Amino acid sequence: MSDLLARTVAAIRPADDGAMAAARALQARLTKPPGSLGALEELSVRLAGLAGACPPPLPEPAVVAVFAGDHGVHAQGVTPWPQEVTAQMVNNFLAGGAVVNAFARQVGASVTVVDVGVATPLAAAHPPRPPGRQYLNSRVRAGTRDLTVEPAMTRDEALAALHVGVTVAGDLVDDGARALLTGDMGIANTTPAAALIAAFTGSPAAAVTGRGTGVDDDTYARKVAVVAGALELHRPDPADPVGVLAAVGGLEHAAIAGFILGAAARRTPVIIDGVIATAAALGAAALAPDAVAAMVAGHRSAEPGATVALRHLGLEPLLDLAMRLGEGTGAVLALPLVGAAVRALHEVATFDAAGVTEK
Amino acid sequence: MSDLLARTVAAIRPADDGAMAAARALQARLTKPPGSLGALEELSVRLAGLAGACPPPLPEPAVVAVFAGDHGVHAQGVTPWPQEVTAQMVNNFLAGGAVVNAFARQVGASVTVVDVGVATPLAAAHPPRPPGRQYLNSRVRAGTRDLTVEPAMTRDEALAALHVGVTVAGDLVDDGARALLTGDMGIANTTPAAALIAAFTGSPAAAVTGRGTGVDDDTYARKVAVVAGALELHRPDPADPVGVLAAVGGLEHAAIAGFILGAAARRTPVIIDGVIATAAALGAAALAPDAVAAMVAGHRSAEPGATVALRHLGLEPLLDLAMRLGEGTGAVLALPLVGAAVRALHEVATFDAAGVTEK
Repeated sequence: MSDLLARTVAAIRPADDGAMAAARALQARLTKPPGSLGALEELSVRLAGLAGACPPPLPEPAVVAVFAGDHGVHAQGVTPWPQEVTAQMVNNFLAGGAVVNAFARQVGASVTVVDVGVATPLAAAHPPRPPGRQYLNSRVRAGTRDLTVEPAMTRDEALAALHVGVTVAGDLVDDGARALLTGDMGIANTTPAAALIAAFTGSPAAAVTGRGTGVDDDTYARKVAVVAGALELHRPDPADPVGVLAAVGGLEHAAIAGFILGAAARRTPVIIDGVIATAAALGAAALAPDAVAAMVAGHRSAEPGATVALRHLGLEPLLDLAMRLGEGTGAVLALPLVGAAVRALHEVATFDAAGVTEK
Repeated sequence: MSDLLARTVAAIRPADDGAMAAARALQARLTKPPGSLGALEELSVRLAGLAGACPPPLPEPAVVAVFAGDHGVHAQGVTPWPQEVTAQMVNNFLAGGAVVNAFARQVGASVTVVDVGVATPLAAAHPPRPPGRQYLNSRVRAGTRDLTVEPAMTRDEALAALHVGVTVAGDLVDDGARALLTGDMGIANTTPAAALIAAFTGSPAAAVTGRGTGVDDDTYARKVAVVAGALELHRPDPADPVGVLAAVGGLEHAAIAGFILGAAARRTPVIIDGVIATAAALGAAALAPDAVAAMVAGHRSAEPGATVALRHLGLEPLLDLAMRLGEGTGAVLALPLVGAAVRALHEVATFDAAGVTEK
């Protein structure tokens, strides 16, 4: 473990029991039947525990960081999409034309694109962006190696990608962000995600491999075989999370793991998107189990591996809309729910204050 | 049926197939894998069909109308909350201190309270409200009669409450609203909701009666017996929806049914909240089956009757957070999802326009 990573992990503390008890007590005094806000009450208690304060800060401003990378395993035909689409979509994000941009505008979040290893040169130079969109060139290498024949990354490359994520999270919090959201872009990246989930949870390849963007039966069978073969070749050891990320992960997966750790170290909630983010979250939790206290599961991706990962982390997602896009779209849509959960603690009157009779 | 109701029902048209086909075709050209937005793609298609346009209007501005009323059946001990809490909560809504106010601020909706039959005099005069909160005195009577001994309302009273809802919906759309959200307040109102759902769906009382604000076992047993007894006494005929609403409904249930019909007549989406709203929606659908095209199910309430009603209507809820508060809170939380679904059609780039290669 590098110095930065060790310091980050050391800064991650368990949830604060006193703040959680205070949030539970406050929820019981608000003008509503006890428990009637369901999952949002539990969420408000968790976020109080994370912040060590009741009420915890409102999750505003919020930034979705879209980590983009390419994958050597693309050569194995695990997806019908050409690799250059990763770079084309980075341009689309920066032009504001992708779904994550539209959804971020809907909920008042801004979008930062972190190029941690796109293989294709970007079409255009990226001058400073308008507010709400930003491009960070943090390329560790131009895509990973093919995990079916060698480790996807060296250990140093995986650490460098983790560092990118830790640093981006810290910088965003320094700049005022009070909620961080994970996003991803990388053609073929559901394949390493499945391998990571299998490695960290001990699940068989077929149970965690999905159809990603919607592959046909032949491609799906090839994808399962690729994941199973990678596990057989590398025998990744979950007790060595950096080694697992290096062997079968992706640059964006490692960066998102670092991003989650960076958020947790700053006691800032991090809304986890879909299968790429949950795979990364397993890596973060393996490095620092208390990081789970900072995680909010945004949605249940249609990818089966995401559900396996969420179960392993003990997280229930806020949304279940059969989405399978990535980019951070499922995390962005969950942001208003996180805001509402916290806002109730800030703004709802108590029975006493409102002059409402209790039952 | 009154003239206003007949005109409203006559104005409700089936969804526009051409606009739905255009929305499906547009979704296929947006820069994302086809189908990857899951339930939100279907929702965008439905809303295009409702509006008769692709893209349909963004659901902004949005107003949640909280219809408040009291219930004669309160005398039967179906809830531990005193009846005056209905009026106290109306004051809380107008002071901005209830959960629905906090959630509405989160998502940028405004709150209108429609007093359609609160039994207790309100504590204070209500001067003109600040923007975003409004009080309408539309009392039909000071609470319903006790449905265990007589019809809750006369037919004329039920029609008057329906008219209130139709008129409020029309006025809000005239004032610029492009999304209407249903809210309710009324101590004991889950009991008539259960009776309505049983009557319109043919389900037994025990299958549709829940614990409302969280009643104990004895109260729950009494509540089921009250619902079963009311069905036995009145034998409500689902072919006569106004008669059903009058016999076993509530003033706010009837008003919400009218509100839904008013929204549908104006081709404006109406986000349905929990068990009160779904019971009312069954009444609206019984009067005008095509009104279902305007309904968006906001969430799955923890009340079992809500799920029975949604199944009968053929609607899948957007959220499932084990909430059981009412007030419109579950509808308000769904608003950003509706906004995101429509916004994707407005703002996401196509493959051609963004220069992204298709698979």
